[in-house]
Amino acid sequence: MNEPARSAAWIERVERELDAWLPAEATRPAPLHAAMRYAVFNGGKRIRPQLAFAAGSVLGLSDDAVAPIAAAVELVHCYSLVHDDLPAMDDDDLRRGKPTVHRAWDEATAILAGDALLTLAFGGLARAGMPASVIAGLADAAGSTGMVGGQVLDLAFEKETPDTDLLEAMFRGKTGALIRAAVELPAHLGPASEAERLALADFGDAIGVAFQVIDDLLDVEGSTEELGKPAGSDQARGKATWPALNGVEAARARADALLDEARGALERLPPGPAREDLAALGARIVRRRF
Amino acid sequence: MNEPARSAAWIERVERELDAWLPAEATRPAPLHAAMRYAVFNGGKRIRPQLAFAAGSVLGLSDDAVAPIAAAVELVHCYSLVHDDLPAMDDDDLRRGKPTVHRAWDEATAILAGDALLTLAFGGLARAGMPASVIAGLADAAGSTGMVGGQVLDLAFEKETPDTDLLEAMFRGKTGALIRAAVELPAHLGPASEAERLALADFGDAIGVAFQVIDDLLDVEGSTEELGKPAGSDQARGKATWPALNGVEAARARADALLDEARGALERLPPGPAREDLAALGARIVRRRF
Repeated sequence: MNEPARSAAWIERVERELDAWLPAEATRPAPLHAAMRYAVFNGGKRIRPQLAFAAGSVLGLSDDAVAPIAAAVELVHCYSLVHDDLPAMDDDDLRRGKPTVHRAWDEATAILAGDALLTLAFGGLARAGMPASVIAGLADAAGSTGMVGGQVLDLAFEKETPDTDLLEAMFRGKTGALIRAAVELPAHLGPASEAERLALADFGDAIGVAFQVIDDLLDVEGSTEELGKPAGSDQARGKATWPALNGVEAARARADALLDEARGALERLPPGPAREDLAALGARIVRRRF
Repeated sequence: MNEPARSAAWIERVERELDAWLPAEATRPAPLHAAMRYAVFNGGKRIRPQLAFAAGSVLGLSDDAVAPIAAAVELVHCYSLVHDDLPAMDDDDLRRGKPTVHRAWDEATAILAGDALLTLAFGGLARAGMPASVIAGLADAAGSTGMVGGQVLDLAFEKETPDTDLLEAMFRGKTGALIRAAVELPAHLGPASEAERLALADFGDAIGVAFQVIDDLLDVEGSTEELGKPAGSDQARGKATWPALNGVEAARARADALLDEARGALERLPPGPAREDLAALGARIVRRRF
């Protein structure tokens, strides 16, 4: 697997930004700020920030310019995990092998820590002087017709089995919208052309859907140890998944086709090492084992 | 009680803005959008929007200019009610005489509808072209050192009785920060001086704390019918309140003193009918019966 040479630097950069945005643990109320930091500094792979930095790099933007977008997108991702893990939602006790926030603290703290992380994503963007289109774009990706809408559809599918088109529409909301935003929002910062912005959006869209197809596959194929959360939980819950609807082989083929689509979109961007980094990140997402 | 002549027009104006911001009920996922609209169009008194319009009016701003701030502040208020009512928090079944969102739908929908309303507050401000300082200011008021932080302290006080200073610090977060933001944020739009902005902030700060002192009093003195939620619920829960710490008479006196403080802050603003409207709104908050 090719890892972009700059991955480690990008992870360090976004974690520095997140650390600067998050109030210190001792800030009152201390349990809230401890829970927020626990939810953010949890060994996450920072896939969305890396995508943002790589996309910015294709457009000639510095890592410092892109860092607020990388941090905000990661905060939205982290808040969504805290809320999704709640008993009223996916009811998960473990996240990356550690107790989920509502298990380590309590449900109220988990709800409120999630709320505060979401709020901080927008506050941080505004304080960093990001243009209104970035803030509006993140809100669209995160909101009722994006990530939150996808999560609502996902929960509905525990009762009512969708067809593949509707399942992928859910993927586009639940996972795809934020991944697409990570890749596309840097185009609002610089002198990117509309064609470049659309190419990044198409890349992000395909990778976003592929990400969730792979997530479904790993739930079938992975072990609890590898995943850091109980394997087979989708099946145990009777949840509709891509492999449940179409089989494991077809799911693997669909993910590969989406990766090809994503690579096709990248052809519309200037060639060079930055574009290769973005392609490598996409491939890593689709080829990942956990 | 003096009601500003423009109250009805202000309520109509913010509800028009909210209606324009919220996706139609038929938009997929329909249950989510129905729950969001239910949470927003619930017979609320729109106190915070009215404060925003009145403050803007003092500064010579049009209602149209202030409408995005009024709508965003109300959305944050509405989301906070949905989350506060959850079983893991205040566990309330009724809100203004109607089932709370998690009773009318379910807990997951209530959590997600709240998340989406919060997200829409920031997206709406950005789409309306509000300056970054307004977005950052709302995030500060709503976040972990503002409203959410106050709610965490409030829940902690069910276990551990605070003194009056700490109780009022909680009030400043839980209720005060958003009321203060409603009054202060319009000053970021126009040619307001720093002295005017601070006068509005001080007014909002005093009214915000008074609002919560009165809320505590009404829980002791009001009837379930008047309140639209169970009276005496704070006491039943053994929750620390201003009257529980200092008695009902002292609480009433504290609210009056805060109203005087608020009026004093208004003296630092240009006199006229707009300032009188703002004073009347402050008095209504402190003199309200439910």
